[in-house]
Amino acid sequence: MNKIETEVIIVGAGYAGIAAATKLFESNKNFILLEARDRIGGRVNTQKAENSGETIDVGAQWIGPTQYLIWEWVKKYQVETFDCYDEGINIYHYKGKIKTYKGTIPKMNPIALLDLGIAMERLKKMSKKINLNAPWSIANAEKWDGITMDSWIRNNMLTKAARSAMHIGLETVFACQASEISLLHFLFYCHSGDDLDALLGVTNGAQQTLFMKGSQNLLSIVAKPFQDKIIFSQVVNSISQNGEKVIVKTDNLEVHAKKVIIALAPALCQKIKFSPTLPQRKSQLFQRMPMGAAMKCFVIYERPFWRNKGYSGQIVSDKPPLHVSFDCSKPDGRGILLFFVEGKNARDFIERPLEERKEKVLSTLQLYFGNEALKHLDYIDKCWTEEEYSGGCYAGNFTPGSWIQFGEILRSPIGNIHWAGTETAIKWCGYMDGAIASGYRAAEEVLKS
Amino acid sequence: MNKIETEVIIVGAGYAGIAAATKLFESNKNFILLEARDRIGGRVNTQKAENSGETIDVGAQWIGPTQYLIWEWVKKYQVETFDCYDEGINIYHYKGKIKTYKGTIPKMNPIALLDLGIAMERLKKMSKKINLNAPWSIANAEKWDGITMDSWIRNNMLTKAARSAMHIGLETVFACQASEISLLHFLFYCHSGDDLDALLGVTNGAQQTLFMKGSQNLLSIVAKPFQDKIIFSQVVNSISQNGEKVIVKTDNLEVHAKKVIIALAPALCQKIKFSPTLPQRKSQLFQRMPMGAAMKCFVIYERPFWRNKGYSGQIVSDKPPLHVSFDCSKPDGRGILLFFVEGKNARDFIERPLEERKEKVLSTLQLYFGNEALKHLDYIDKCWTEEEYSGGCYAGNFTPGSWIQFGEILRSPIGNIHWAGTETAIKWCGYMDGAIASGYRAAEEVLKS
Repeated sequence: MNKIETEVIIVGAGYAGIAAATKLFESNKNFILLEARDRIGGRVNTQKAENSGETIDVGAQWIGPTQYLIWEWVKKYQVETFDCYDEGINIYHYKGKIKTYKGTIPKMNPIALLDLGIAMERLKKMSKKINLNAPWSIANAEKWDGITMDSWIRNNMLTKAARSAMHIGLETVFACQASEISLLHFLFYCHSGDDLDALLGVTNGAQQTLFMKGSQNLLSIVAKPFQDKIIFSQVVNSISQNGEKVIVKTDNLEVHAKKVIIALAPALCQKIKFSPTLPQRKSQLFQRMPMGAAMKCFVIYERPFWRNKGYSGQIVSDKPPLHVSFDCSKPDGRGILLFFVEGKNARDFIERPLEERKEKVLSTLQLYFGNEALKHLDYIDKCWTEEEYSGGCYAGNFTPGSWIQFGEILRSPIGNIHWAGTETAIKWCGYMDGAIASGYRAAEEVLKS
Repeated sequence: MNKIETEVIIVGAGYAGIAAATKLFESNKNFILLEARDRIGGRVNTQKAENSGETIDVGAQWIGPTQYLIWEWVKKYQVETFDCYDEGINIYHYKGKIKTYKGTIPKMNPIALLDLGIAMERLKKMSKKINLNAPWSIANAEKWDGITMDSWIRNNMLTKAARSAMHIGLETVFACQASEISLLHFLFYCHSGDDLDALLGVTNGAQQTLFMKGSQNLLSIVAKPFQDKIIFSQVVNSISQNGEKVIVKTDNLEVHAKKVIIALAPALCQKIKFSPTLPQRKSQLFQRMPMGAAMKCFVIYERPFWRNKGYSGQIVSDKPPLHVSFDCSKPDGRGILLFFVEGKNARDFIERPLEERKEKVLSTLQLYFGNEALKHLDYIDKCWTEEEYSGGCYAGNFTPGSWIQFGEILRSPIGNIHWAGTETAIKWCGYMDGAIASGYRAAEEVLKS
């Protein structure tokens, strides 16, 4: 067992952990960063496609215009970005009928459209009432945390088409079923990411901008000045503290420090043995933030051929598992089409053999775009529920009734243990930008004390 | 690291693990049982009160008349039991007014009474529709798993008094808030334990019978023939399997076997490192069964003095945290009064200093029973959220939307890993009897293969 002495230990080299590290580095703090995997990024992971050689973000990939912290990095390090393709006509596949539309709202019958519009306006209005710093403190918190979004949709939306669209939108944003989250969590999350339109949108929304070299590349550049401080393949088994010192143990390292920042998803914190044990409230909190189930299926083509036919590459379908797609092709580059598979569908789909998944995605695209859709260079998919060191994606969602009971201690340090991770963010919770914010906040807590 | 070779490893020496062991022992299987604590029992724990010397079950304590498996043990080993005191008048404390009543339903105004009665009848009727073997398969499963009990109560009960009583009942049975569980989970659990009346009741209900020497004592007697096979203070860190063999590691033991039975609450399984990693669906399931928060506060008196005043010792109050009490005095013995503190209240109450908790319980009893209530011999309380090797009590409750997505794999073996624990029981899920059933079932799986 090798012993290391330092000032601060950061656990997890995702966006949150690296962001915390930048602040400690700027302040000349001594620190080391322990990462379970053999790479940085966590739920951010850029891979190279086998045949086409294209870089593909199998994890988080987009940034929105109001994600100021990540934009600071983009500008500082001058990494190349491009706008996600958002022209042409979208496809809406509902009850076996394929229709086209423009903008963000599919072409439904007028009553369904009205139904959806009213519901979205009501949700937007309610979400503005959320105090992002303390969602549990608002007037209706208890009521709103006691109702699932599944119930809310049933009780407040009348038409099947509008309900279906709302479910698809929710599943795409939260990577879980509407029954798994409360109205309060939904509203918090929407407000945290500006609003529901922003979360769903491409232009001016959370899916606006992409990285030429992937989002893991930006993180590598940010981490470069202190890359010697990152130790890979270090799964943290235990953390003990005695008021003065913190000892973090992995299979082959024992690191002593004054402070530790845990930059992991809350559910994963249960895998660490804490001594003394965590306060009961914190332990029970970690039992109540299950990870979503997000899967991305990419098909790479010679060219984004659908554009020639006038299509945007954006599809909304009520037919599981391929509900929502985006065109992620680089400017003047190969055609890259991305389908999301979310929640229950993700867990089902990943259990099918790779060949079957590929065939399903290709034949679905053939349906929309014709036989050209079959002539692909690469098929790559990734389901984050399979990742031991993520536990799921995009984020841990509070279960119904948990915000009001546990929200207040989500960010509270326990002795010399501080908590980062996008789930603890106030703005852009669940996104890379929120991860950065959480890392900054945790680092500031450490630096202040 | 000591190496042991055996046929079957059981993890956890609670009622489930010991029940599994009895079956293996009867079949002359070689096995060992690894227990994290220095005692058997898990969420069953009998303690001796300091001053009075009374044995007190700070964990599970009662058995009901239809809990046939535990009754088999009681009869076989001839352990002494007694009926929980269920005579005299009960107290109903609502909106500052103290009233008395007889039977199980507090004396409310007639409209509230009707409201409560109708709601309970509806719930009972629905619960009978649950297929206990497959709650996810019934007609309304998706709808019922998508609505929280908080919503159901709001939508289906009209009066504040009836709603309050329903919340108190639910919190007492599930040790969580109504917002944390779905209607489907509620109905499954009620049906699993006969029905809601049985779960709430003393005579003919789940609170009918108590053990003279405590419920841990019965387990010790059951475990006696194979007590040399139990190794204490063994926290399982990792379990690996390769199709032929299973290797279970603790800090100082490496045990090789053909099969392992994990008799832990599902949430605790997240603390074990599995190799290969568990299937994604099982990992995500374990993130979705948070433990309840149950706390028991006992006061021991020279005699059950309240009986002389005509009181049963059963109290229902709307004033947190002391909502429900029972008289657990042994026949002709000392007076033992038990208050339950559940869910949110349990987490709040245990954070108060012991002296304050004691004072609160005593002054509350003084309010109901007069100054005699202050002259106590012992005050003992226990909040199970503080127990690292339980994670909470009574049981792990499925979060809304989880039964329909994960119910089917709750009991499924993973290679040579089999799963016991009261949460996997079909009858009396969450109770000692369900734990025994789950241990038997897991042992049978092992013996058959």
